[in-house]
Order: sequence, then C-alpha cells, then structure tokens
Amino acid sequence: MLNPHYLEMLGKKSVIREMSVWATNRAAEIGAENVFNYSLGNPSVPAPQAFTDEMLRLLQSESPMALHGYSPTLGIQSVRQAVADSLKARFGVPYEAKHIFMTSGAAGAVAHAVRAVTQPGDVMLTFAPYFPEYNPYIGGTGVELQIVPASIEDFQIQFDAFEAMLTPKVTSVLVNTPNNPSGVVYTTATLQKLAAILRAKGAEYGHPIYLISDEPYREIQFAGVDGPFVASQYEHTLTCYSFSKSLSLPGERIGYVAVNPAAEGADLIADMCGQISRETGHNCPPSIIQLAVSKVLDQTSDLSVYETNMNLLYNELTSLGFRCVKPGGTFYIFPQALEPDAVAFCERAKQFNLVLVPSNNFGVPGHFRMAYCVDTETVERSLPALRALAASYR
Amino acid sequence: MLNPHYLEMLGKKSVIREMSVWATNRAAEIGAENVFNYSLGNPSVPAPQAFTDEMLRLLQSESPMALHGYSPTLGIQSVRQAVADSLKARFGVPYEAKHIFMTSGAAGAVAHAVRAVTQPGDVMLTFAPYFPEYNPYIGGTGVELQIVPASIEDFQIQFDAFEAMLTPKVTSVLVNTPNNPSGVVYTTATLQKLAAILRAKGAEYGHPIYLISDEPYREIQFAGVDGPFVASQYEHTLTCYSFSKSLSLPGERIGYVAVNPAAEGADLIADMCGQISRETGHNCPPSIIQLAVSKVLDQTSDLSVYETNMNLLYNELTSLGFRCVKPGGTFYIFPQALEPDAVAFCERAKQFNLVLVPSNNFGVPGHFRMAYCVDTETVERSLPALRALAASYR
Repeated sequence: MLNPHYLEMLGKKSVIREMSVWATNRAAEIGAENVFNYSLGNPSVPAPQAFTDEMLRLLQSESPMALHGYSPTLGIQSVRQAVADSLKARFGVPYEAKHIFMTSGAAGAVAHAVRAVTQPGDVMLTFAPYFPEYNPYIGGTGVELQIVPASIEDFQIQFDAFEAMLTPKVTSVLVNTPNNPSGVVYTTATLQKLAAILRAKGAEYGHPIYLISDEPYREIQFAGVDGPFVASQYEHTLTCYSFSKSLSLPGERIGYVAVNPAAEGADLIADMCGQISRETGHNCPPSIIQLAVSKVLDQTSDLSVYETNMNLLYNELTSLGFRCVKPGGTFYIFPQALEPDAVAFCERAKQFNLVLVPSNNFGVPGHFRMAYCVDTETVERSLPALRALAASYR
Repeated sequence: MLNPHYLEMLGKKSVIREMSVWATNRAAEIGAENVFNYSLGNPSVPAPQAFTDEMLRLLQSESPMALHGYSPTLGIQSVRQAVADSLKARFGVPYEAKHIFMTSGAAGAVAHAVRAVTQPGDVMLTFAPYFPEYNPYIGGTGVELQIVPASIEDFQIQFDAFEAMLTPKVTSVLVNTPNNPSGVVYTTATLQKLAAILRAKGAEYGHPIYLISDEPYREIQFAGVDGPFVASQYEHTLTCYSFSKSLSLPGERIGYVAVNPAAEGADLIADMCGQISRETGHNCPPSIIQLAVSKVLDQTSDLSVYETNMNLLYNELTSLGFRCVKPGGTFYIFPQALEPDAVAFCERAKQFNLVLVPSNNFGVPGHFRMAYCVDTETVERSLPALRALAASYR
C-alpha cells in the first residue's frame, strides 16, 4: 500500500537534474574544463572564515551537552534574538525574538509560513517566472498555487493580470525577489503598488492577504539596484530567509521565518510554526549551526564574483542579439531563446557543451536560465561557445 | 486567516513541558540541587570525543564548498552507504545504500515513513504506553492513530486486544522498543508473535501491513536483556532511528529511515521519502553532521550511567512497594502511582520536590514516568524524597 501520490511524484523528472546529469556524463567524456555547466544554483564561493572559526570555537570550548542539546522547537532563544536584532538594525522593522522561527533553509521556511496563514482550499498567487519547487511546497498543504503570467519585458509584475486573478479565496501571495530564475529585483515602485492592492483587496474581502516573501538571494544584489526589504513595504509579510547563498551553506539547512510585528496575528505565527513542525517531523535546524550562524549574521561570503559573471554574460548575450532583462541580483540570468521552443534551444546548446535550463518549468515559455555561480574563468571560456550557438541560428 | 488547526494545537499544553517549567521555577526558589527533575528525556552524558574530533577534522581539512554544499535529498551517498554497511554488519539484514534515507532525527524519520506507506483515511495501530508526540506526527498525515490498550503486567503486547483491532483499513503498525515511557524492550517471542499476526492478516487483507519501528533507544539496552533488532523479525519493516540518544546529539537532528530490503516496494520507499521531503520543507539533515556521524556509526556515548540509575531507582521503588516493570533499556521507568489518579500523585510529589510525569498522556492511567537521564548522585539524593512520598500514602 505505497502512497500513490508520492509514487506518482517519483515518475516526474526534474529538468534541472537531467541537465546536471548530462553535464556530469559529458564531463567524463571530454573533460570537465570543456563543459560549461550553467544548470545548478549551487554557491561557488566558500563560507566566510568567520563561520568556520565560530564552529571550531564552539566545538573546542563549549560543553558538548549544551552545544548539541535539544534546541527549543522555535529555535534557540539567543539565536532568535540575534536574528531579530540584526533585521531591526538593518531594515528598521521592529522585530522581537518572538517573531522569529528558525528553519531548515528557505524551503522549510516557506513550508511553515504557508501552513500558518492558509487553510486547505485557499488560493495562493505567485508570479511567473517562478521556482518550480513551489509546486510541491504549496501542493503538499492543500492550497492551490495559481501563477500570474510574467511581465516579459522587465520581469516586474503584470498588475492587470494579478488584479484579475484576485478573489476572496486568495489568502496569500508569494514573491521571490531577487528572483530565481530571472535575477530581477522588485523595485520600490513595484512593491508599493503590490502592497496597495493587497491592502485594498484585504479590506474588501475582510481578511488580510499575507505576503510570503521568499528571499534566499536577498544579500546578492548588484550595484545601484533599487531593491528594498519586502517586509518594510507591507505589514502582513512573512519573510522566508536562508543562509544557503549568503554564507554558502546550502547543505547545512539553516534559515528562518520572520513575521512582521505589524502583521495580523504576528504574536501567534512563530508559535504556530512550532506546531506545524510537530506534524512535519520537527524541522528545527541543528543547534551548532544555529549558534554559529548567529555570530555571523551581518557577514556574507565574498559574493562579488556573481556580479562580475553577470556583467560578462549580460554584455555578451546582448551583443549577440539575445533579448535579456539585466539581473539586479542572484546568480541567474534568464534570456529569451533564439527559437520559440526553449527545450529545443537547450538541446542544441548541448552541441556546444553549454548546459542551460529551458524556461518551461519556470512558468514562462521561450527562455532559458543560466546559473552563473561558477568561476569567472569558466564564464570567459564559455563565451566562444555562446557565440557559436548564436551563429548557428543565423 | 490564521490556520485554525494550528491555532487550536497552540492551546493544548504539554504536561511534560509544564512539569519542566515547574522544576525550573522551583530550582530558582530553593536551589537546583534540591529539585529532583525527572521530567525531561534529555541525554545526560556528552557526545563521544570521536564525534567532536571528526567535526574538527572536517572543518580544518575539507573544502568549505564540499563540506557545506547541498546534500542530495536522500542524504549524502557515502553516508547512506556507511549506514547500510553498519546495519548489515551488526544485524545481518542486507541493507544497501538505496534503502537508507537520512532524516532530521527520529521525528523526521517517523513522519516520512508513515507518509510513504499509508494514505489518508488508513488506520495505524500502536501500543500503550506510547510517546504522545505520535499524535501530531501521525495526525498530520490524515491517518487515524488507534491505541491498543497496554499489557499492564509486563508492557509487552496485549495480543488479544491487538487482533481485535485489526481490520483491512490497518496498513501499518508502529512499535517503539526500547519503549518510552515504560523502558521495556520487546522480547524475541513478542516480536515473532507480532510478525506472525501481521503476515497472516496481510495475506488475508491482500496488502502488507508495514511495521514502523521507532527505535531511538536501540543502543540503550541493559545487561542480559532479550531485545532483537526489530527488522530482523519482520520483512515489511521501516526502521526509524535517531542518533540523539546513542551519541547524545539531540539538537543536531540526525537519524534515518532504513527500509528492510525484503519489504514490499523496498526499492521505492527511500526515493518516496525524498518526494515527501519536498512537500514538508526538505527535512534532509545538515551535511557536516551527516559526514561526522557516518564516521562514528558503531560508537556511542558512555551510556552506562543509565543502567546504574535504573538499578538504583528500580530497587528503591520496589522496596517501597511500588508496582514496577523492570526496564530493559532507555532512561525511563514507569511505575504504578500510589493512588489511581496519576495527576494527583504527581502533584503530591511536588511537595517533595520530585518532578514526575503523570501517565495519562502516554495512554495508560495510574502510572508515572521518571526520566533518569541525570547524574547518579542526583538519583541517590532523591531517594529520601521518594521514601517520604511513599510514606505520605501510609
């Protein structure tokens, strides 16, 4: 009596994973240096030394029983306080420890946040292009995820389409800025307009519409970009953060939900997340990682390589005639393919040992994602392959 | 629109937590050394030095990007292989890496195992006394958890009651041996009889009945106890393990599901657990902890204090006239209270600064749990208080 729902999920292949497997196999044939693998969003810079130093200090000087003892379900109190203090100091939103729930990365954060502020049968809206893992994150809660079509020219928000999809069943909206896969950052104007609509519709429907802000790329924003802290623009915001990208710790599964103190029910939501954890198998992150991260909250890995790589690729792609919105952050770029069928385009790119991800799974046709979390030297060596790919379409 | 289900859960207080809070407050009044806190099941011995040494080695010699990089959803391959090899060598069950799914502790393991082999609407049976957190673990899946009444005289299984509760809707049975709260270990005879019934009923119903074996206390078994490895007794077994107790790492959230290779669907179940993780927020445990634990799989903390404490308490309790089944493992003992109302008994115990947990939440009336994961010296100092409590009933 295996569960048929999860059996069915097994059958669905991940395009990103298939591309990554192809890259690994191709590297075995022709050498890794000859394959330009832009498929995976894995940080390419090390964790800051301060993180490693803090881990060593904890292991060498703390009592093992205190260090490895149970963390409270909501997270270690001093860690929650440190996160609240850091967010308050940086962004001016008056978080307290009680508004912080420590999670296993952003996936855990989104999974908890959604369950806290929705019920099965509700509708959640998000905006294309979007991270395809939102489908299982949301699908597992009984909430219906509906996708607002993309604003192709700038990957901000197509507000007409958004307003047309709002109904009283919509109890939450999910945003991801800086965005995977587009790299675009929502501007102050975009977020203010979004907030105004949510406030007006919330008043009309008689219930708040919560904004779930998935922001693992918050610290990867490029020079001169207008990208405000989402929660500072809208009161009913649950910020879902991960240290995976900013501290290059994706395997350590550490992040948080921060509930805007002005949100309806703000004093209950973190506690509710603790109850949700009891049902899903207690997602609370490891004690030693919580403690170490809490000492380096305001640091990041050296993230400058991502902007260097973005500029190299953006300049090359646009000079080759690709339609391309300039990323404001992340380590992704999302150009239009040179034929309408993104899958066919990415198949052809393989001839040039370029590993790209077709856009279809991100809710937008005819584009492709490049994850440029690679060495700059690799980007440089890939440019002739990009040129050859473009030339093959002339 | 806060989720009413989780709001309701917020309102339910945990008796264990209340007792623990009382102990903390009382310690502030009269000194910690004068309060005998038997409420919490928190290991009282440190992690083995070999674990700390391996953590230090990883941090000092591995590349941070490899060390802290993404773990595959099912766990790091070398870790899965090491767990399979260790179990095979120790227990003779031919596990391969594909049968192992790394989890965030036993809670994560049970939450995944249940979802893999049941569907909403199914019935799961477990046996009193039982760990009360099974209610949210199972409740969250849509499966109905039904409790088989306890076999009070020995805390083995009341098979007549069990057989009477078996119906075709029962697709899984949950056991916890060594048991929290009774400390009792299921004997070979008990497990063989259980297996025979599950096989016969599975054949009658036309579907296997999976056995989910929650065994975080597997390595805490006392001298001379007959406590076989559960999966070696029944083919359709999913073993749910945690290193929280054996390595004293409860805060680091590390465990696994091991699927018996002879179970129906054995080659699919770990992969299905990976899909389940995508819905619940990717429960996979931290990379560095996976890697460090994989090097000390066959070691434990020095667990001998638990047997010392058990013998002290068992001898004292029985000489005071308490009816008490002798524990074969864990760090719990579960005597009968000296009045029918366990809550009243534990309230009276507070007068003697004894912090005990009433049995009602464990599915058995009239008993109390003592968690003797404390210093032996504390146990010795608590004996006069136990004597005074018993005397107050004469």
